[in-house]
Amino acid sequence: MALRIGVVGAGGRMGQAVIRAVAAHGGMTLAAAVARDNSSVLGKDAGSLVGLEPLGVAIGDTPLDIVDQVDAVIDFTAPQLSVALARRAAERKLIHIIGTTGCSPEDDAAIAKAGAEGARIVKSGNMSLGVNLLAALVKKTAASLDIEFDIEILEMHHRHKVDAPSGTALLLGEAAAEGRGIDLAENSVRVRDGHTGAREPGSIGFATLRGGGIVGEHSVLFSSMAETITLSHSARDRALFADGALRAALWAAEQPAGFYSMADVLGL
Amino acid sequence: MALRIGVVGAGGRMGQAVIRAVAAHGGMTLAAAVARDNSSVLGKDAGSLVGLEPLGVAIGDTPLDIVDQVDAVIDFTAPQLSVALARRAAERKLIHIIGTTGCSPEDDAAIAKAGAEGARIVKSGNMSLGVNLLAALVKKTAASLDIEFDIEILEMHHRHKVDAPSGTALLLGEAAAEGRGIDLAENSVRVRDGHTGAREPGSIGFATLRGGGIVGEHSVLFSSMAETITLSHSARDRALFADGALRAALWAAEQPAGFYSMADVLGL
Amino acid sequence: MALRIGVVGAGGRMGQAVIRAVAAHGGMTLAAAVARDNSSVLGKDAGSLVGLEPLGVAIGDTPLDIVDQVDAVIDFTAPQLSVALARRAAERKLIHIIGTTGCSPEDDAAIAKAGAEGARIVKSGNMSLGVNLLAALVKKTAASLDIEFDIEILEMHHRHKVDAPSGTALLLGEAAAEGRGIDLAENSVRVRDGHTGAREPGSIGFATLRGGGIVGEHSVLFSSMAETITLSHSARDRALFADGALRAALWAAEQPAGFYSMADVLGL
Amino acid sequence: MALRIGVVGAGGRMGQAVIRAVAAHGGMTLAAAVARDNSSVLGKDAGSLVGLEPLGVAIGDTPLDIVDQVDAVIDFTAPQLSVALARRAAERKLIHIIGTTGCSPEDDAAIAKAGAEGARIVKSGNMSLGVNLLAALVKKTAASLDIEFDIEILEMHHRHKVDAPSGTALLLGEAAAEGRGIDLAENSVRVRDGHTGAREPGSIGFATLRGGGIVGEHSVLFSSMAETITLSHSARDRALFADGALRAALWAAEQPAGFYSMADVLGL
Repeated sequence: MALRIGVVGAGGRMGQAVIRAVAAHGGMTLAAAVARDNSSVLGKDAGSLVGLEPLGVAIGDTPLDIVDQVDAVIDFTAPQLSVALARRAAERKLIHIIGTTGCSPEDDAAIAKAGAEGARIVKSGNMSLGVNLLAALVKKTAASLDIEFDIEILEMHHRHKVDAPSGTALLLGEAAAEGRGIDLAENSVRVRDGHTGAREPGSIGFATLRGGGIVGEHSVLFSSMAETITLSHSARDRALFADGALRAALWAAEQPAGFYSMADVLGL
Repeated sequence: MALRIGVVGAGGRMGQAVIRAVAAHGGMTLAAAVARDNSSVLGKDAGSLVGLEPLGVAIGDTPLDIVDQVDAVIDFTAPQLSVALARRAAERKLIHIIGTTGCSPEDDAAIAKAGAEGARIVKSGNMSLGVNLLAALVKKTAASLDIEFDIEILEMHHRHKVDAPSGTALLLGEAAAEGRGIDLAENSVRVRDGHTGAREPGSIGFATLRGGGIVGEHSVLFSSMAETITLSHSARDRALFADGALRAALWAAEQPAGFYSMADVLGL
Repeated sequence: MALRIGVVGAGGRMGQAVIRAVAAHGGMTLAAAVARDNSSVLGKDAGSLVGLEPLGVAIGDTPLDIVDQVDAVIDFTAPQLSVALARRAAERKLIHIIGTTGCSPEDDAAIAKAGAEGARIVKSGNMSLGVNLLAALVKKTAASLDIEFDIEILEMHHRHKVDAPSGTALLLGEAAAEGRGIDLAENSVRVRDGHTGAREPGSIGFATLRGGGIVGEHSVLFSSMAETITLSHSARDRALFADGALRAALWAAEQPAGFYSMADVLGL
Repeated sequence: MALRIGVVGAGGRMGQAVIRAVAAHGGMTLAAAVARDNSSVLGKDAGSLVGLEPLGVAIGDTPLDIVDQVDAVIDFTAPQLSVALARRAAERKLIHIIGTTGCSPEDDAAIAKAGAEGARIVKSGNMSLGVNLLAALVKKTAASLDIEFDIEILEMHHRHKVDAPSGTALLLGEAAAEGRGIDLAENSVRVRDGHTGAREPGSIGFATLRGGGIVGEHSVLFSSMAETITLSHSARDRALFADGALRAALWAAEQPAGFYSMADVLGL
């Protein structure tokens, strides 16, 4: 039977990417879609909204109530709503896929608790399968190589990005630091300019490029005197993050209640 | 006590790289070095031969006899000699590090048998730590990703290389095929020219570049519609392969008799 | 005054990309759009067809007649139609931008003649500004470097591409051959597999990768024993080719009649 | 007749690379080599010093006097000596190839004056042919593309490098700024960390990686919303800089007196 998907945040770029992805994906159907109270998309057909044929689902405004109509909620919204939805998901034993960023430790604890109480939750700061797999490879590589291999992380994003390094670059840095058994904050070199001195052994360097419409490129380099291993990810399309969320939902449909990461989904 | 190293093939480029590496490396000493009967290097001092101070070891011509003077034999030669040396290594309970390529299945079986009978053997088609780690990462990645990710392998080597794809590219292809649970030979696409038709799902493609003095570059790409993961290795110096062989020897010194790969040495 | 644009081939992927680009672009307006006789898009509004608000232009079926309503024709179609349109463009003193591929030498001669007789024609096998600039850089580089630098051309495209190497890779190969003053066909190495022997000095090698949704990546490498120069182009969006065509149209509006290339448009 | 080469700074890494390059190069012969007064290499044979067969040239200590024995002086030393040698080169109408860095504007003026008075001088901060060609390509590209293309410069060097960005990265930045007709210092973004805001249109960004034994990698990226052109250089061996100097000497032998750059040598 097709998984019934509910999308929250249908007024936003990611919500709409999810609607498009559900329509394209086998094994699931769009059962509900909601946006914020004051959104200009309320009442519109979800399919028409995203440039597809009508899907027969009008955009509603009551996120917490869609849990009665769906098997899985896909949620790239804001911490407060995600926490409230996780609680509902626990009550109804639903699947809840959370791509929301900016959650506090308390938010994360509340979400994890929902997983312990009956929801099947997958939460990740980056829903791309590739990036999560890359992080696992980086951790393994950092654990396999000694300090003779210098670790550097390079990222490039479009000109509109307002922070550096990217959250994903930091996620990869954390994976490298964990693999090596060191603390990232204490070993990061985030800026090089002027007379820097020689590279500090054991440090993890970051470098940032910005330009044009690049969706997102990340590379982690491990360099000794005679060789370099480079592990890279290139995202070409934001649909990637929507697809990752749907894959997580299908995976979670086969799992017991719990609080999972994309690493669990991938079996990493 | 310093490990006593014997080098066979001292007339060749790799043998000489090993002599240089032994001289530079702590914890070991050059105890013997031999070349072929008709080699122009016979009788020369091994150190002088490779542009170092004399090492007090003259190049001899009796490979099978050096086993009496050494703890470990480093061997980048030819299948017949490697098999014969492995048998001697089994008799003398020696370490035998084999970088020889082109062994037949029978050769490999004979070498493995020597490992079962008392030798401590490490054999690999590529002694670089980085490439062996890369192969492990490729296998893991291929196992984690489904057929929606197209696998392609790119290699570039110097203009003097006479075969394509490189043995290392094939080794990486094997790792990918194993990870995916398919047979490499049945799924390889080694040539694309003219009207090829669309890419066959599940195939593994190879592409080869040749130019200048490039020591060796390998990349394995996993591409879906929206993302690409690229795992790469770049070798800058052939000393890499000599260093890998010596690291294997030091590791083998702590192991029971057996037939090992570089993956074992790295703990992959 | 806004340039009045006519689009032929509105039923195809490139034609629709051009409609979208015209709508987004200042200084021009969509005046007509046509598709083939039997196309399912006939009669539809051009804007609605491409997921935009209606543009008030219905898709027609008489390509040769739109020349009365437009200042410039954008044409990614087929040789026969492009030649016929070029003749009309000469009669009406119009701008005709041709991205059609597969033209015979006779077709090209007929199109050039139209330029001599009053049309302002820009024709290129690749309308991307970046690729045309890259070709100019490749030619200059090949002319500056001697045969000690081995030239290799690598391309990667999506899994649906049916030929190899790409037309753009061949265009770059031509640029390299011209720069070096050699004939491409006589010096190409398009396949490497098995025992190839050492690289032939002065040859130009090609390598092809296929995978996922990659729009188009090209690199030209110049490698000596000690250094490599790499000149690369990455296309992220097919809109690129539509934008290049529109830029060519605006440029041609300021030129006398003639037969131009994208190199002329760029001032290369 | 073979060009008679004199090497100053034979005690240093670059001087020795030049000796090796002269020995390997046709059309020239090592006629003299000198080192500093207190150098440990004084009196040694130049060939033996660099791991070659003896060349019959003992290392001397009087740099200014070698001008009587040579046609060309290759000089990677220090500003004071280079200025003094340039004056002698003017008197004797010699070729003087200068790779010395850190010259003041006064030093440069004195050297240029020597060119006006009879010396044939080639001076460059980077003697690699490839980097100088790359700079010319970058300038041309920046001149051909408008501000819609964001310019970014990435460099990677070995772990021992003590400054960032590299001098060569800055040289490439200057080439880009010149091509675009802007001032580099006013438009550089040399650091990105934390909340940076969106990329400033027209800026030129720098990013720096450090690791292992990487000799030197430079890339200049030009990115619009839909495409990226990347121009890169990779140096594998410091012999590159010695070879560039010798090529400059052979070229200068055919020129009238003057003060030249590597761009002149390459005909860029």
